[in-house]
Amino acid sequence: MIDLRSDTLTKPTDDMRAAMARAEVGDDVYGEDPTVAALEEKVAGLFGHEAALFTPTGSMANVLAVRSVVTAGQEVLCEASAHIARAELGAHGAYTGLTMRTWIHPRGQVDLPTIRGMFAPDMGPFFVPTAAISVENTHNFAGGAVLPLSDLRDLREYATGVGAEVHMDGARIWNAHVATGTPFAEYGAVADVLSVCLSKGLGAPVGSLMVGSRDAIAEARVWRKRMGGGMRQVGILAAAGIHALDHHVERLADDHAHARLLAEACGVDPATVDTNIVVVHRPDAADFVARAKEQGVVISTVGPTAVRLVTHLDVSRADAEKAAAVLSAIA
Amino acid sequence: MIDLRSDTLTKPTDDMRAAMARAEVGDDVYGEDPTVAALEEKVAGLFGHEAALFTPTGSMANVLAVRSVVTAGQEVLCEASAHIARAELGAHGAYTGLTMRTWIHPRGQVDLPTIRGMFAPDMGPFFVPTAAISVENTHNFAGGAVLPLSDLRDLREYATGVGAEVHMDGARIWNAHVATGTPFAEYGAVADVLSVCLSKGLGAPVGSLMVGSRDAIAEARVWRKRMGGGMRQVGILAAAGIHALDHHVERLADDHAHARLLAEACGVDPATVDTNIVVVHRPDAADFVARAKEQGVVISTVGPTAVRLVTHLDVSRADAEKAAAVLSAIA
Amino acid sequence: MIDLRSDTLTKPTDDMRAAMARAEVGDDVYGEDPTVAALEEKVAGLFGHEAALFTPTGSMANVLAVRSVVTAGQEVLCEASAHIARAELGAHGAYTGLTMRTWIHPRGQVDLPTIRGMFAPDMGPFFVPTAAISVENTHNFAGGAVLPLSDLRDLREYATGVGAEVHMDGARIWNAHVATGTPFAEYGAVADVLSVCLSKGLGAPVGSLMVGSRDAIAEARVWRKRMGGGMRQVGILAAAGIHALDHHVERLADDHAHARLLAEACGVDPATVDTNIVVVHRPDAADFVARAKEQGVVISTVGPTAVRLVTHLDVSRADAEKAAAVLSAIA
Amino acid sequence: MIDLRSDTLTKPTDDMRAAMARAEVGDDVYGEDPTVAALEEKVAGLFGHEAALFTPTGSMANVLAVRSVVTAGQEVLCEASAHIARAELGAHGAYTGLTMRTWIHPRGQVDLPTIRGMFAPDMGPFFVPTAAISVENTHNFAGGAVLPLSDLRDLREYATGVGAEVHMDGARIWNAHVATGTPFAEYGAVADVLSVCLSKGLGAPVGSLMVGSRDAIAEARVWRKRMGGGMRQVGILAAAGIHALDHHVERLADDHAHARLLAEACGVDPATVDTNIVVVHRPDAADFVARAKEQGVVISTVGPTAVRLVTHLDVSRADAEKAAAVLSAIA
Repeated sequence: MIDLRSDTLTKPTDDMRAAMARAEVGDDVYGEDPTVAALEEKVAGLFGHEAALFTPTGSMANVLAVRSVVTAGQEVLCEASAHIARAELGAHGAYTGLTMRTWIHPRGQVDLPTIRGMFAPDMGPFFVPTAAISVENTHNFAGGAVLPLSDLRDLREYATGVGAEVHMDGARIWNAHVATGTPFAEYGAVADVLSVCLSKGLGAPVGSLMVGSRDAIAEARVWRKRMGGGMRQVGILAAAGIHALDHHVERLADDHAHARLLAEACGVDPATVDTNIVVVHRPDAADFVARAKEQGVVISTVGPTAVRLVTHLDVSRADAEKAAAVLSAIA
Repeated sequence: MIDLRSDTLTKPTDDMRAAMARAEVGDDVYGEDPTVAALEEKVAGLFGHEAALFTPTGSMANVLAVRSVVTAGQEVLCEASAHIARAELGAHGAYTGLTMRTWIHPRGQVDLPTIRGMFAPDMGPFFVPTAAISVENTHNFAGGAVLPLSDLRDLREYATGVGAEVHMDGARIWNAHVATGTPFAEYGAVADVLSVCLSKGLGAPVGSLMVGSRDAIAEARVWRKRMGGGMRQVGILAAAGIHALDHHVERLADDHAHARLLAEACGVDPATVDTNIVVVHRPDAADFVARAKEQGVVISTVGPTAVRLVTHLDVSRADAEKAAAVLSAIA
Repeated sequence: MIDLRSDTLTKPTDDMRAAMARAEVGDDVYGEDPTVAALEEKVAGLFGHEAALFTPTGSMANVLAVRSVVTAGQEVLCEASAHIARAELGAHGAYTGLTMRTWIHPRGQVDLPTIRGMFAPDMGPFFVPTAAISVENTHNFAGGAVLPLSDLRDLREYATGVGAEVHMDGARIWNAHVATGTPFAEYGAVADVLSVCLSKGLGAPVGSLMVGSRDAIAEARVWRKRMGGGMRQVGILAAAGIHALDHHVERLADDHAHARLLAEACGVDPATVDTNIVVVHRPDAADFVARAKEQGVVISTVGPTAVRLVTHLDVSRADAEKAAAVLSAIA
Repeated sequence: MIDLRSDTLTKPTDDMRAAMARAEVGDDVYGEDPTVAALEEKVAGLFGHEAALFTPTGSMANVLAVRSVVTAGQEVLCEASAHIARAELGAHGAYTGLTMRTWIHPRGQVDLPTIRGMFAPDMGPFFVPTAAISVENTHNFAGGAVLPLSDLRDLREYATGVGAEVHMDGARIWNAHVATGTPFAEYGAVADVLSVCLSKGLGAPVGSLMVGSRDAIAEARVWRKRMGGGMRQVGILAAAGIHALDHHVERLADDHAHARLLAEACGVDPATVDTNIVVVHRPDAADFVARAKEQGVVISTVGPTAVRLVTHLDVSRADAEKAAAVLSAIA
């Protein structure tokens, strides 16, 4: 079976398992796990921020990151198919109690003119003020689309001008970096707070990080414990993250090439495939998925007429070629 | 001073005060206030629904109504400048914990093609399903715009087809009725649950109602008490509401005529003024407001470049003409 | 029928209705209702605090008052049968998200040694710190018991020493004042924040107030609106409250005398009846209530073996004597 | 340094690391991790329940377990120093919105007469009903005290009779089992839902489980994801848990013996030390801790006059004897 449902499916490599097995650990709730500390410092440094915080999931990293800039009674603006809006089971409303309003862009992009029109200044205790604007890069439900750095810089400038914070859901920021060559620090510079994920394209089994200022991270550490995310000798998992950052970033270029191959096979214009996700629009989505499975290619629907394919660490060039052949025949 | 800031400003008339003074009352928390019961029955009947519930404010009516159809982990879709999104201090997120996504329409209208594109079916415990679609009629921040019945019927049909509920914020549904002649029952027929307000154009001092099924109202009665809205001998206020419904609905036509007069005076096309609200876009909004005040006309900004004028029960024809003269001179 | 279920049942007197009918009003959401302002100033002054805030119910006054001193992640200590714990439908947890721990006293009293043992200092981000201690005076479910001023002063001193705030649920503080002669300012001096209720013994149809510092009230005003308690021309109700404060406080002595009469009739030691509430413990509670009703005396159970009788403005001396005769016969 | 601050401090043994390194894994969010499934089945079976759910922390296991039996508007009763009340940063109020009331017992025991007096039946929409009673076994802040099975059975019978659920915080249930010989299934039989922890005495680096009915677990699985606890290839950690259950349960008897040794050294009656926790009451708590540290024994305060010592997997007999000598000299 070639499993293209998600890049969350990757299993740790032998080298990664070895790194985990020898990881030095301590009680991270007491701040005593050296491997977690090393990972947090490494990731904070990568993005040019002061600090970072390890979390069990990307969802928790996003909830903590967004709540560090938006509280109940305030709003966050985001694109209508953002992961924080569509996925995460509504945690931002359920746990933080914030308000969300959305702009709509078929490719999940920053639409600054629309954002300007939506932005709500603080006009006293009658209205909901815009506290933050959230972007997702790459954008999962928009098919792994990259947000151009120039757009992010314009947003950063606008947000600073009106006193809003910028949150970046960078679960797949690694893919954006590899696809565009943009240094991580450039992405870090356009956001007040970010989340990044180790267990998607990077292939670590578990773990994400929130990245931000020292103060924001200190406060998030308390909220992480309140949410039930304060793990103990979790350096075991952090070691996998460090290994992934050291060995699995640049190889994402292969995933991107495989994705373009699959796009072509499915009749999707490869020019629209920025990274490792391909969304195929087909009226017969469920049937398409079923037939692919019969031939050993596991994919999934992400809507009544949308099929999603995701390449990753456990899909080799040969796998990609075989899957392309199968899908091309069905399509 | 001619006060055009809001139709919430109206003071009870002498007849309304007399009705309140003689109201029969009881402890409504025990379900023993006959005047409240009469008002609730009257309003439920008007909209062809089974039951209604008196609340201290339109905000509480909306929070109770929306939470009867959307819970934490689910989402409501609404227009981006809806009162439930922009005003109410974020109570739907803060207290119900729901998720909100928005479409954008300059006149606050139902945009069914966009809604279709946004609608999220229940796809299992990963995504946030659309539980309800909310519309506001008339639409406050879109300048009192009426939503055409045909659009509401199309929405109703679509929502039923996909299994979503429809919430109508009918705080100013009375104005929509008077402007279009649409019977209240027609509005009731296109929504599963509504809120209506007595203390805006109708001139009652305090009070709104949630309108819906017997079950939804019974459950909302408990939540109303939890929110601190379970008042005792509140028939005093309900009596004002009954009086308002009996005497202040049809006269809203005067408010509408006054609004068109003011629109013309401010250089706004009167054809765009559906009811009793006029929004004037001016780069010098704050200054415009200040100069009007100097000449005895009190208006307010609703954004950096937007001024709002609202006509109501306490603005006579003569007041409207005088205000028009003042504003025309300034404009 | 003589209705002894609750002192919330009172209906406005003719004089009170007249006061409401002539009340000067304005839009209180805009801070423009002179009668509300007068009531708030009057009540704040009575208790020697800076400010007060009118609310639709005692529940909302308590929720706002407690949340002004305790947030999510902190705890309030209170007696186990306190109104904030047992009634109010769990709003403090549901809306404020706070933690509650309780001490147990059969008469709802301050038990300082136990409170000292429970108090949790702020020991860093692992434990829940005690932010406030709440007392109820008089104590509803303890049968209208008065809390002695000396106990309240000791609590005040202790709380100040450990850095905790004191909340007083003074829904029936009027009864405590009349029963003991303690000036309201003395009660005000032992609490950082209070709630008081106009629609119980005082006989106003609707309304309570939160009392506290100017800052706390300003912040509570915003949260009141978020909870849906920001009413418009609510001076109509505030006028009833002013009338009640001017005319219905000292007469509570009659209610207390009537309560002792009823206690005696039911075989309850009148020395245990501090104010206007009598709790009768009977294994046949439901039956006792049913038989009383047959003979024109309406009372209620507050537990499987507990019956509660409450005297109030609408129970005359003759009513009390008649009820005593009926209950004595049944008992 | 001999570290006696907590049994959460244990580091994985070489054998445990080997088990983790070779663990078969899959994406547990998709229900495809065989090692997690094996652990969940093993633990459910141990307690005679239908199902179990792996969580990143004991706090999350408790929040999910308690919310499966108590919602906003309902209450849980527990002992005043229970972990769910004092620790977990107030998550039950903050995230579930429940109400908590407490009984007080110096040894954290079930006090059934008091519980009977506190229990609140469902008396309609005015009061907060008792939905569940929570016990903690062994009881952390009561010094690792065991709850006798007979008390738990009486509570179970009482709770069933009144329609309340029983939650057991069994973070250290392993210690109770070893101290008393009570089979796990007996503990499982007295609770509707339990939490158990692998990263305390058992020595796994990370992980707890909620244990309950198939339906409760299915619902908790969704809430776990909403809370950000839905990890991916987390079989790595589950493997440590399986190893711990297979190898580290019976050896807890050593920890208990070591604890009694330390108790004696500190002048605490060893008969009061049920398991692996010793609480020493000293007016000079902070100083005592500081002096112990100077001599290589790390302990901590759990209150202004209370010091806690915890024995665990990483404290050998020789360590315990050395620590006893140091502490005895200081004491």
